[in-house]
Amino acid sequence: MKNTATLLITCPDTKGIVAAIAQFLYAHNANILHADQHQDAENNLFLMRVEWDISDFNVPVSQFEQAFSPIAQRFEMTWQLKLTEHKTRMAIMVSQYDHCLVDLLHRHHSGELTCEIPLIISNHRDTEKLAHFYGIDFHYLAMTKETKEVVEAQQFALFDQYKVDLIVLARYMQILSPAFVARYPQRIINIHHSFLPAFIGARPYHRAFERGVKLIGATSHYVTEVLDEGPIIEQDIARISHRDQVEDLIQKGRDLERVVLSKAVRWHIEHRILLYANKTVIFD
Amino acid sequence: MKNTATLLITCPDTKGIVAAIAQFLYAHNANILHADQHQDAENNLFLMRVEWDISDFNVPVSQFEQAFSPIAQRFEMTWQLKLTEHKTRMAIMVSQYDHCLVDLLHRHHSGELTCEIPLIISNHRDTEKLAHFYGIDFHYLAMTKETKEVVEAQQFALFDQYKVDLIVLARYMQILSPAFVARYPQRIINIHHSFLPAFIGARPYHRAFERGVKLIGATSHYVTEVLDEGPIIEQDIARISHRDQVEDLIQKGRDLERVVLSKAVRWHIEHRILLYANKTVIFD
Amino acid sequence: MKNTATLLITCPDTKGIVAAIAQFLYAHNANILHADQHQDAENNLFLMRVEWDISDFNVPVSQFEQAFSPIAQRFEMTWQLKLTEHKTRMAIMVSQYDHCLVDLLHRHHSGELTCEIPLIISNHRDTEKLAHFYGIDFHYLAMTKETKEVVEAQQFALFDQYKVDLIVLARYMQILSPAFVARYPQRIINIHHSFLPAFIGARPYHRAFERGVKLIGATSHYVTEVLDEGPIIEQDIARISHRDQVEDLIQKGRDLERVVLSKAVRWHIEHRILLYANKTVIFD
Amino acid sequence: MKNTATLLITCPDTKGIVAAIAQFLYAHNANILHADQHQDAENNLFLMRVEWDISDFNVPVSQFEQAFSPIAQRFEMTWQLKLTEHKTRMAIMVSQYDHCLVDLLHRHHSGELTCEIPLIISNHRDTEKLAHFYGIDFHYLAMTKETKEVVEAQQFALFDQYKVDLIVLARYMQILSPAFVARYPQRIINIHHSFLPAFIGARPYHRAFERGVKLIGATSHYVTEVLDEGPIIEQDIARISHRDQVEDLIQKGRDLERVVLSKAVRWHIEHRILLYANKTVIFD
Repeated sequence: MKNTATLLITCPDTKGIVAAIAQFLYAHNANILHADQHQDAENNLFLMRVEWDISDFNVPVSQFEQAFSPIAQRFEMTWQLKLTEHKTRMAIMVSQYDHCLVDLLHRHHSGELTCEIPLIISNHRDTEKLAHFYGIDFHYLAMTKETKEVVEAQQFALFDQYKVDLIVLARYMQILSPAFVARYPQRIINIHHSFLPAFIGARPYHRAFERGVKLIGATSHYVTEVLDEGPIIEQDIARISHRDQVEDLIQKGRDLERVVLSKAVRWHIEHRILLYANKTVIFD
Repeated sequence: MKNTATLLITCPDTKGIVAAIAQFLYAHNANILHADQHQDAENNLFLMRVEWDISDFNVPVSQFEQAFSPIAQRFEMTWQLKLTEHKTRMAIMVSQYDHCLVDLLHRHHSGELTCEIPLIISNHRDTEKLAHFYGIDFHYLAMTKETKEVVEAQQFALFDQYKVDLIVLARYMQILSPAFVARYPQRIINIHHSFLPAFIGARPYHRAFERGVKLIGATSHYVTEVLDEGPIIEQDIARISHRDQVEDLIQKGRDLERVVLSKAVRWHIEHRILLYANKTVIFD
Repeated sequence: MKNTATLLITCPDTKGIVAAIAQFLYAHNANILHADQHQDAENNLFLMRVEWDISDFNVPVSQFEQAFSPIAQRFEMTWQLKLTEHKTRMAIMVSQYDHCLVDLLHRHHSGELTCEIPLIISNHRDTEKLAHFYGIDFHYLAMTKETKEVVEAQQFALFDQYKVDLIVLARYMQILSPAFVARYPQRIINIHHSFLPAFIGARPYHRAFERGVKLIGATSHYVTEVLDEGPIIEQDIARISHRDQVEDLIQKGRDLERVVLSKAVRWHIEHRILLYANKTVIFD
Repeated sequence: MKNTATLLITCPDTKGIVAAIAQFLYAHNANILHADQHQDAENNLFLMRVEWDISDFNVPVSQFEQAFSPIAQRFEMTWQLKLTEHKTRMAIMVSQYDHCLVDLLHRHHSGELTCEIPLIISNHRDTEKLAHFYGIDFHYLAMTKETKEVVEAQQFALFDQYKVDLIVLARYMQILSPAFVARYPQRIINIHHSFLPAFIGARPYHRAFERGVKLIGATSHYVTEVLDEGPIIEQDIARISHRDQVEDLIQKGRDLERVVLSKAVRWHIEHRILLYANKTVIFD
């Protein structure tokens, strides 16, 4: 894999932005690998992702901010620079439902997900052996209503200790406290087992069955303070019929959940997601 | 096309039902073309659709009820007998959004929908020429809040006059009165431009855009007294991205609406739909 | 609709291309509406589509070539400039299978396809009335093996007379002569009723049925000298089962063909397609 | 799970078959759980799957053949009786591409696949640890052109030793000899990484990329003597664009392969597949 830098930019839309960025990169000998942009006319926003090979780039990373600041200030940009040499450090939180965990671990093992996974936290012991099979630290933290605050504090300590950048709720089945959510803005990804905004909350497959829908879905999204209302990253559906019982919905849904969650994780760790107005822009 | 009879049955599930029906049909020399059944364990229900060629069948239609009643009574059946020689007579109600109407008329013209379409009613004049192109009577009935009751009475009179069996709301954009809905139970099919139960009510594409979903949908359903809560017949979705504006959602949605509505109409007129517990069983 | 210019560029990939183009447009006060680019590493190619509002642009169209030529020469560009004020003039060729024609005409009528359709040519009279309903000239030209050369000459004359830019084969069911194909490079779009490269040639639904596939497809592509081997623009599939007979495949396939062909037409007339290595890049 | 019997029947289509079977089951107090049938008019064939709870059934399994033979003979039936108490014993053959194996093992572990997996055979050692993690015997058998016959003989011995009913090629990447295929008719399931019949043979993703298709696919099928020509069990596709390189096709394809293979395996072990005319009937 090439050693690359990725610049993510959000700013008010105006003339000359692309010219300024492209000129800056050209002047510093960047070999652009991918560039994608989006304009939102309604919100007058310009969003861009540009990735380049840093081997020929003549601005050291430590001086990038200084070198880029004239452009950033001129266009009032919010920006981030991401380097492939710093891999995202991802913690996975899971219940006894292990299908998404198995999937993420295998994709990581096979090289599809280029991140580090130093930590798995669960309120069940079911996945401990699997974590160890893949050489990942596993922490069992039981939780009750009464102990939630204490246990979340332990979780925060673990995230600090393992230098975690991203928290993935792989069917964790616990609602995070507002303090938890506030602590990791745009850094918690959840998989919800319905096509949101339908069937927000608990037991979506049971409610889908009761309503008699002909499609079931899954949605990956960033976690915000309001349950299942965060920015949607990816969704997909599967067709069902009257022959499918709740158990069939659950089983067919697992295949959706796996794929929908893993795509969200992949786009996040490859810095392909920009957020605005409670929506995601996916530069895939 | 063959001249066939279709028997639709719903009854409590117990042993011996299929044996009794199959024996009855065999004894009367029916040549079975299709048979499909469904058991709902939770509700202890048995549902069946069986279609046979009536050319060799030795029970005259006029005597079918009498001949079949011992079985029907023994198993406490609700049943209907449908003959291909009686084609469903369908009225279409439409606004100025004509894409579903165009689609239904072309499918009818090409022989895909084996029904009669004697009547189109609209609160706009936009589709009048099209109706006449296909040789169908068109009635323009403007409607305001104040005139709703009067106009609906005119509509009922037209349905009577044209001997209408089925009313299809092909993007009619008006909410029917409870009296209207009650008058035509399981005989009104609507197309809603979202994947229900998401985005019930008005302007679903606008609300989908605001929520930032990655899929849009369409749902055909029977109309019941509660808006968009009737039994779902068919649903489908299309993928969208951040590049799609509301206008793109509307445009992509039209392709969904056409297909989702026409499938519902087809299954209805071919007597492939059975209803229970606010759900549909589709014997396709 | 805004009055826009669209620049389509293909050139060898090297540093500085985007900087030069963006600087050029910025210097001439272009208000960029959409920009999309693609780099093909294997073929060392750079492809770009950029669309801008021409109301503020300070280079008159007549002088664009001269103004842009320094950049074009420096980067060895192949380029085209397309203006919304010049609408593509599209001829449709059709057999008695009219479902794609009906679909294209309705999309055009509703404003979804922003082109002109001055001409329909058919070797059957079935669609003549429909053409006239939409106010389009219809030419019936019967064809036999013996008269093919003569009839195609008549077709060429019609294309000239109607100033046709694009020829759409909407289930035309005739193989064009090499002379025909050579005369209209990248200007003939066909719909083939299979997911190419499976079932090239005649009777694809019948062959799909015989092979026992679980999916059927449709493919829109540019016509080249080798049958069904031209650059693919769009494809889609529908699920089938053992319950589907050949007639069901044909019926389900019609829904695919309509959507797949209309997307190709739309992308072509909106100048969203670039071609290289017998492939399409779709800037949608 | 209930203890059930499943009867699979194929016979010439004629009147009275369902009546006879249903009467037989009713007379012997069978509680029918599922029944599905298919008639192929072209081939004049009747196919049926009926599953019942054997707890109340008053014919002992050992006497079923004798009890059913009058009906079987009268209608010239080919039939099989399958009992849930006998679980299919499945061997998996795999190369170093382990994604389908990981998927099958997890589905088995989670109870989704109700079979036994006593044996994994590979020509690579990569998956040995995974096999042991799930407690399954792993046999490494290297193979060259020269040793093929000898190694296949070793494989046959293993299949005998482990009493294998079904062989699943989970990306095994070796072509079986005609002798191998002939030894296990309708008992070998393969996953091919294209939508057959497109891209038969080697390197389908590379060839799909070269052709410029907009969809990739995967196909599970029974292995017969002609490569990739056996009866298709399941197929699915994923959408790709010009942005996808061969590596992206391979990655997206893995998700298809997993789901398409596991569905085929599930339907096989649940006795939902009937074969005729090189096609499958799936009673799902």
